[in-house]
Amino acid sequence: MDPLPLSRAFTLIEPGPVVLVTTREGERDNVMTISWTMVLDFAGRFALTTGPWNHSFAALVARRECVVAIPSAEMIDTVIGIGTCSGASVDKFETFGLRRAPASRVAAPLLPDCLANIECRLIDRVEAYDMLILESLAAWHDPARAASGRMLHAVGDGTFIVDGERLDRRVAMRSKLPEGL
Amino acid sequence: MDPLPLSRAFTLIEPGPVVLVTTREGERDNVMTISWTMVLDFAGRFALTTGPWNHSFAALVARRECVVAIPSAEMIDTVIGIGTCSGASVDKFETFGLRRAPASRVAAPLLPDCLANIECRLIDRVEAYDMLILESLAAWHDPARAASGRMLHAVGDGTFIVDGERLDRRVAMRSKLPEGL
Repeated sequence: MDPLPLSRAFTLIEPGPVVLVTTREGERDNVMTISWTMVLDFAGRFALTTGPWNHSFAALVARRECVVAIPSAEMIDTVIGIGTCSGASVDKFETFGLRRAPASRVAAPLLPDCLANIECRLIDRVEAYDMLILESLAAWHDPARAASGRMLHAVGDGTFIVDGERLDRRVAMRSKLPEGL
Repeated sequence: MDPLPLSRAFTLIEPGPVVLVTTREGERDNVMTISWTMVLDFAGRFALTTGPWNHSFAALVARRECVVAIPSAEMIDTVIGIGTCSGASVDKFETFGLRRAPASRVAAPLLPDCLANIECRLIDRVEAYDMLILESLAAWHDPARAASGRMLHAVGDGTFIVDGERLDRRVAMRSKLPEGL
């Protein structure tokens, strides 16, 4: 994967894809499926909703870092498998044949099978709403797959929507886009 | 539009669509385009990121209510038009030929051209992150269009993704879905 400028990291989260979040606690990696995320600014800060009901939550809060990866639509059954078992009893990487690669700024692993990865630091919590506030430290993507890759959006009722047509409105949107994007 | 049970309101936001947010201040309606939203629970609470840079923000905070509507992909140029001008100087309903209908619980109008509408109360703010916390009071959708309607996802770089194929994984997801969904 190639580096993606941090000024573009928010464009991975803004379309609302399901994400995989990896953590490391001690020598043990874990990964969870999250679909409640939100961009907070153009600088790569974003929020996600999770809590102690996810086994990864303790590691994320203890280590204050994670990787947020964007799976492709072809990974749907892996995404669902990861989301419906617990790292407390299962090695999800082995169970789902999920490859790992070292990250540059955090101990949690990158997922090279995903379309993109964001290495993140946990900078704050909004406990009233089980919200974690993340800051992007580094981002990676596969440029070839970024153009053709389709993301997955959870509806929340057990159905998922795959990315369809992409519409270019860069000219009309120019006044609202950050400089240089 | 038909009523949608509040227990399903989160399924309108979870896939990450661009939304239109209507407000009313005095006799004046306004509408803004927002793409930074996040589900907070299965009970219809969600967050959105906005601030005083949006003209609607003052009315939303003053009246503590709004309607969050889900536009269809066909509405892309209306969505962009709404997002790139200000209600301070433009009557967006007139400019974009956007129809309005009365809501049941709030003064802000419903948008019957959209796929679905959620009437919301502003219950909290997280000012450090320009976040508004909304609670759903009533939701409406057009069942015929809900099945075939395609939502729009902003990437943030001036391109937009239209909903593609829908994948049914209700059996595999059963253990994670709220009762009765």
